[in-house]
Amino acid sequence: MSGSRIQAEQLRAKVMDAEAAAALITSGSSVGMSGFTGSGYPKAVPLALAAQIEREHAAGNPFKVKVWTGASTGPELDGALAKADGIEFRLPYNSDPIAREKINRGEMEYFDMHLSQVAPMAWQGFLGPLDTAVIEVTGIRPDGALIPSSSIGNNKTWLDRAGQIILEVNSWQNPALEGMHDIYYGTALPPARVPIPLINPDDRIGEPYFHCDLAKIVAIVETDTPDRNAPFTPPNADALGIAGHLIDFLKHEVKKGRLPASLLPLQSGVGNIANAVLTGLIDGPFDNLTAYTEVIQDGMLDLMNSGRLRFASGTAFSLSPEAAASLNANMNDFRGRLLLRPQEISNHPELIRRLGCISMNGLIEADIYGNVNSTHVMGSRIQNGIGGSGDFARNAFLSIFMTPSTAKNGKISAIVPMASHVDHINQDVAVLVTEQGLADLRGLSPKQKAEAIIANCAHPDYRPMLADYYRRAREGSYGQQTPHLLPEALSWHERFVRTGSMLA
Amino acid sequence: MSGSRIQAEQLRAKVMDAEAAAALITSGSSVGMSGFTGSGYPKAVPLALAAQIEREHAAGNPFKVKVWTGASTGPELDGALAKADGIEFRLPYNSDPIAREKINRGEMEYFDMHLSQVAPMAWQGFLGPLDTAVIEVTGIRPDGALIPSSSIGNNKTWLDRAGQIILEVNSWQNPALEGMHDIYYGTALPPARVPIPLINPDDRIGEPYFHCDLAKIVAIVETDTPDRNAPFTPPNADALGIAGHLIDFLKHEVKKGRLPASLLPLQSGVGNIANAVLTGLIDGPFDNLTAYTEVIQDGMLDLMNSGRLRFASGTAFSLSPEAAASLNANMNDFRGRLLLRPQEISNHPELIRRLGCISMNGLIEADIYGNVNSTHVMGSRIQNGIGGSGDFARNAFLSIFMTPSTAKNGKISAIVPMASHVDHINQDVAVLVTEQGLADLRGLSPKQKAEAIIANCAHPDYRPMLADYYRRAREGSYGQQTPHLLPEALSWHERFVRTGSMLA
Repeated sequence: MSGSRIQAEQLRAKVMDAEAAAALITSGSSVGMSGFTGSGYPKAVPLALAAQIEREHAAGNPFKVKVWTGASTGPELDGALAKADGIEFRLPYNSDPIAREKINRGEMEYFDMHLSQVAPMAWQGFLGPLDTAVIEVTGIRPDGALIPSSSIGNNKTWLDRAGQIILEVNSWQNPALEGMHDIYYGTALPPARVPIPLINPDDRIGEPYFHCDLAKIVAIVETDTPDRNAPFTPPNADALGIAGHLIDFLKHEVKKGRLPASLLPLQSGVGNIANAVLTGLIDGPFDNLTAYTEVIQDGMLDLMNSGRLRFASGTAFSLSPEAAASLNANMNDFRGRLLLRPQEISNHPELIRRLGCISMNGLIEADIYGNVNSTHVMGSRIQNGIGGSGDFARNAFLSIFMTPSTAKNGKISAIVPMASHVDHINQDVAVLVTEQGLADLRGLSPKQKAEAIIANCAHPDYRPMLADYYRRAREGSYGQQTPHLLPEALSWHERFVRTGSMLA
Repeated sequence: MSGSRIQAEQLRAKVMDAEAAAALITSGSSVGMSGFTGSGYPKAVPLALAAQIEREHAAGNPFKVKVWTGASTGPELDGALAKADGIEFRLPYNSDPIAREKINRGEMEYFDMHLSQVAPMAWQGFLGPLDTAVIEVTGIRPDGALIPSSSIGNNKTWLDRAGQIILEVNSWQNPALEGMHDIYYGTALPPARVPIPLINPDDRIGEPYFHCDLAKIVAIVETDTPDRNAPFTPPNADALGIAGHLIDFLKHEVKKGRLPASLLPLQSGVGNIANAVLTGLIDGPFDNLTAYTEVIQDGMLDLMNSGRLRFASGTAFSLSPEAAASLNANMNDFRGRLLLRPQEISNHPELIRRLGCISMNGLIEADIYGNVNSTHVMGSRIQNGIGGSGDFARNAFLSIFMTPSTAKNGKISAIVPMASHVDHINQDVAVLVTEQGLADLRGLSPKQKAEAIIANCAHPDYRPMLADYYRRAREGSYGQQTPHLLPEALSWHERFVRTGSMLA
């Protein structure tokens, strides 16, 4: 494969192995890496950096870096660096189990951010300097333009902002990805910001390539490694139940004239439930659908193959190995129907509000008043991060949150008296769905929301406990706008920590 | 005054007294009223409606209405209707003490909403039908165009959506207000939404008048009544301290190159602290300032009179009687320098993010991790509502929250272990300021935020208690991303409810 993907003659001299490239990264520096939901992250340099860190640690020398990415990456990046105890500070999203464990033991600082705000805040100078960018690309054109990989994330910003650039050219990535990206170069710092000229999900407003100062490229590493594509789990009964309630609701909204027959651009989180909803839409009745979302997962491609989904815009793929193989084998069939954009554009509040997205996201728990915790188990232990859910939930036409009503074999209720951490305030939650049913919270007061959520969403094992809490809070609360009993509000979480179950 | 403000001959026949107009409003209906922070609300019809409701109640007949407004109104509206027990449901904001008491006794349903979302949600059909609009105007032109009053709020939407319209023509309002409004008629339902063509705070994108279907006007009532203009309280030592810290920070940001020398468009909440900040800016060193805000208060006009503030855009005035008199006496001096817009435009996420506003809002409490409660005392008792703070805080260039470090003569700490209600998640809080100092939270992990907040913002009486909680949470928490001790997290609030003080 050597050299074939690197068509810029003047850059050939920068090709080196991962160890030599990693040696250009210094302790204490900030490294902006590519990668979003397990796709398009660098696979060789972070591993080599982890090995270098381990050698330094063995020699008694401190060595840690600050790691910025698009979102989650793969075991060769977050996993390896966390295992080497090499990450001092991490933003804006992590789902790696080793890194998560380090964070939750207090051994690694982590700032989970609204994904749309990472690039602007970097430009605004709020995150400090960026020393090195490590970016996976599909290839380099003769003029030095970079063909993006299977995710865009913050790559444009990292390439622009970093002092030095290390590229990984990954031959595993399909060369047919060329042309399926839309890199918007019209962002600016205020007061020079202008309207983003996107009015339909399929509008192209940018260019298919990244451009960077070639003099900043200090190393190019060749790889041939697949993305972390997680196996697909078929939807279980809960996921199918949630999908059923949600699709019935969308039908109802169309009938009432509150949604067009082809709905509005869909945004969907990843995972089992999201896939069940997307797969459920294959059975109709909605046609000519579009998606304006963060991540394009298996269900999105299935929906496209069914003919129901006309177009999908995202910032990354997140596919099973089978779906990735199928996409790679048929990439040209998807040309003009899939587009990847920078995450500040895929998740931009301006665009989400303008397009009127229907956002569908998961959660860890919701309280009876509709406040949603997407991130912290028992209020303190981070699961992944807020990701793009806040970008979408606050600005969507319809902000939908969905979850099985229980977790841990029924030991945890997803509906609790008071959320132990809040990521989405009740004003940003229009619809809450569990396998038990759907609560339409639009235009309701907190007490009206509580009645709808307890009746429609709670599991029968917990419903009487919630109704009892609410009834007593209606009597004993300090105020009656959002009735709570302070000594009891977090007692379910406390009980779980103590006994392993929220059940009394 | 009769008739002089009503230049549309064809509408003269609709002039009637307030009682006759109020009689056109039926029990159970939804009424969209004008009014925002005590300005531009109808002053006669709501009083007459309250009297009518009291008569019905005395006769044993149920009578309640749903009241929608821009934001807070005055005693003749919220006060009178709440006192008559005439409000079944209220949105999107209230600051009236009688209504607040009803809400907190559980006798009135209240949905406090992001102010930018009220109009879109009404158009989307999420709030149900709107039966009647009751709108104060300054005058009616010969062609029936309506000259807006001292606030815009949701008036355009109420006029468009309501089944019938009642106008109050208030001769107290200065006729020179004509031309100082910019009503944008380019909003739409998705998928027909387009970019809002505003790129500077002083851009005009609409028209100076409301237009409505004249056939829907069922009554016109003439009034001559001042707005509820609350007396100005001079800033106390805490407010001056907060202003000092904040202005020092802004100077520092300019020096570091993270802010332009003329800053970025200011958004400022109302009240003593906000006025102290605005007044503090009179002493320099920033020139050519602009404001893109919700409410134009005394300090804003003082800053404009000083020559520092070039232009201010808002949706309403909120002035002391003295400032209102001065503005009315000198309205022409302010022409071209003040503009009122619909609240969906003054607070639009698209525009706030584009302009890069510096948002400055108050709070009730913040926790050590930077989560902010703006609405609920002790987690359950509503104070006012979230208002526009969420529109600004999430989309601002710099989201600043400010508060004295204690309330109730030191019995309440504004910095607590865990917020008893969350309106602004820590990701939406860049800077926290008290009279004790300023915590710059940008780019910090939750634990780093806690250390900064406890050290810089907490009152000395509570700082050791917070440090002790945090230290023990660092040892005993379930997870260490956001360390908490669940049995204690809300114990300060519980103690206050029980003993009247958060002090141990």
